Amino acid sequence: MPRLYLIPSDLGNPDCMDPRLVETITPIEYLIVERLRTARRFLRKIGDKRNFDEEVRWLELDKHNPNVKHIRKTLQEAKSTSQDVGVLSEAGNPCIADPGSVIVSIAYELNFEIEPLVGPSSILLALTGSGLSGQQFSFHGYLPVEQASRNKRIRAMEQSVNAYGATQLFMETPYRNMALWKSLLNQLNPSTLLHVSCDLTLDTQWIKTKKVSDWKSESVDLHKRPCIFAIGRKMRMK
Amino acid sequence: MPRLYLIPSDLGNPDCMDPRLVETITPIEYLIVERLRTARRFLRKIGDKRNFDEEVRWLELDKHNPNVKHIRKTLQEAKSTSQDVGVLSEAGNPCIADPGSVIVSIAYELNFEIEPLVGPSSILLALTGSGLSGQQFSFHGYLPVEQASRNKRIRAMEQSVNAYGATQLFMETPYRNMALWKSLLNQLNPSTLLHVSCDLTLDTQWIKTKKVSDWKSESVDLHKRPCIFAIGRKMRMK
Repeated sequence: MPRLYLIPSDLGNPDCMDPRLVETITPIEYLIVERLRTARRFLRKIGDKRNFDEEVRWLELDKHNPNVKHIRKTLQEAKSTSQDVGVLSEAGNPCIADPGSVIVSIAYELNFEIEPLVGPSSILLALTGSGLSGQQFSFHGYLPVEQASRNKRIRAMEQSVNAYGATQLFMETPYRNMALWKSLLNQLNPSTLLHVSCDLTLDTQWIKTKKVSDWKSESVDLHKRPCIFAIGRKMRMK
Repeated sequence: MPRLYLIPSDLGNPDCMDPRLVETITPIEYLIVERLRTARRFLRKIGDKRNFDEEVRWLELDKHNPNVKHIRKTLQEAKSTSQDVGVLSEAGNPCIADPGSVIVSIAYELNFEIEPLVGPSSILLALTGSGLSGQQFSFHGYLPVEQASRNKRIRAMEQSVNAYGATQLFMETPYRNMALWKSLLNQLNPSTLLHVSCDLTLDTQWIKTKKVSDWKSESVDLHKRPCIFAIGRKMRMK
C-alpha cells in the first residue's frame, strides 16, 4: 500500500529537525507543499540533493482554497504507480493550523497508509513551556480580526479556563500581535495567567507566563514575530 | 540564568528521537523524573554514558500528588550553584497529560529560563494523521471511568464537533480501551468521524479514521495498546 508521509518542517532553526529526516524524504517522488519556493529551500537546507525540477513531482496548494480535484489527481497518479506521497508544511507539523488535513482525508479514501513524522510544533512547545495545565487544553487557531468579536472570544476562553481549568491556546498574524496583546490585557481578569512564546527555537526565543496584572507594567515587543499565546491556570498542587 | 529543560522521551521507538538529544541532556546534573527505572533505561538507550548513581541528582515525582516542597527544594539547590535542571517525561512531551507543568510554574517563580525540547507527541501525531480539522482542536485527557459520566462527556464532545468543527482528542488507560471503544460506538452518531491511533511510532502502528457506522462492522483490537482517540469532521473543501 502506498504511504502518505506527513512531513514537519522547522520553525526557523533547522537544528531542531532530526538530521535523519532527509533519508525518509529523499525517496518520495510526489510532494504536496504550501509554497514551492520555501519547500525547496527547506529541503536543500536539510540536505536533499535531488534535481528538484526533474526528480520531484510537485503540487502547490492554495492555502485558503485547497483544490480537491488536483489533490485527488496527484494521489491517484501516485497510487497507480505505487509511489509514496509527502505533504510538507510551511512551518511545524502539517495539518495543524493549515489545510493539510484535506489531503489526509482524500488519502484515506484512496487507501493510502498514513505516516505522520515527528517534528517541532510551536503549539506543543508553547504548552509545554507555559507551566499551565497540560491535562486539558484547546487550540483556537487565529482569533477573529474584528475587535468586538475578538474581545468576546477572549472572554469566552477565559470562562473556559475558570470553569474547567483547560489551557486555551491561540495565535495571530504576526503583524497584528500587538493589537491582540492590547486586547488581552484589556479584556482579561488581572489574576488570569497569560503565556506568550515568541520566536520559538530561534536564538531570540522568548518564553514567559505571568499574571495579566504583572504584564501590564511591562513593555513587550511582539511585532512581526511568530508567537503562540495561551491563557490558563496553574495545576493544583499539595 | 539557570535553565529548566523539558525533555521528551520516546513512545516506545527510540529511532523517533533526535540522535543529538543526548548531547543536550548529558551536562544536566539535576533530573526530575516520573519513574527512576524507566528514566534511567531511556537515557541509556539514547546513549547517556554517565554513572547515574554518582553523576546525576534525581528527584522522582509522585505522578498523582507531585510534592511541591521537594520540587522547590531541588530547583533552589540547583539555582544556588547555577546548575540546569531537566524534567523527563515517561512518554512523549513532559507537561502534556502529566504533572510536569507544576515544575515549570515553580521554575518561573525562581526565574529559571524555560527551554522546551522537540520530541514526539502522540497527541500531535494522532491529530496530524487523522484527516480531521487541525484548525481548532481540544484535548480532554482521560475521560471519566464511570459509564454514565463518560457517555455524557462523549455526547458533549460530539456536540462541540457539530457546533464548531473542532476536533476532540482524548485517551484512556490501555486496559480500558475496549470499554471506551464500545461506548464510543454506542453513543456517537453513525455519521461522526472517529479516529484511532494505536501503537504510534512502533512497528505495529495502526492509524485510521472512519465513520462510526463503518467502524461498527469491523472488529478492532485495542486492548492494552497505547491509543489516542479523536472525533471530528473533515475540513470543508471546494
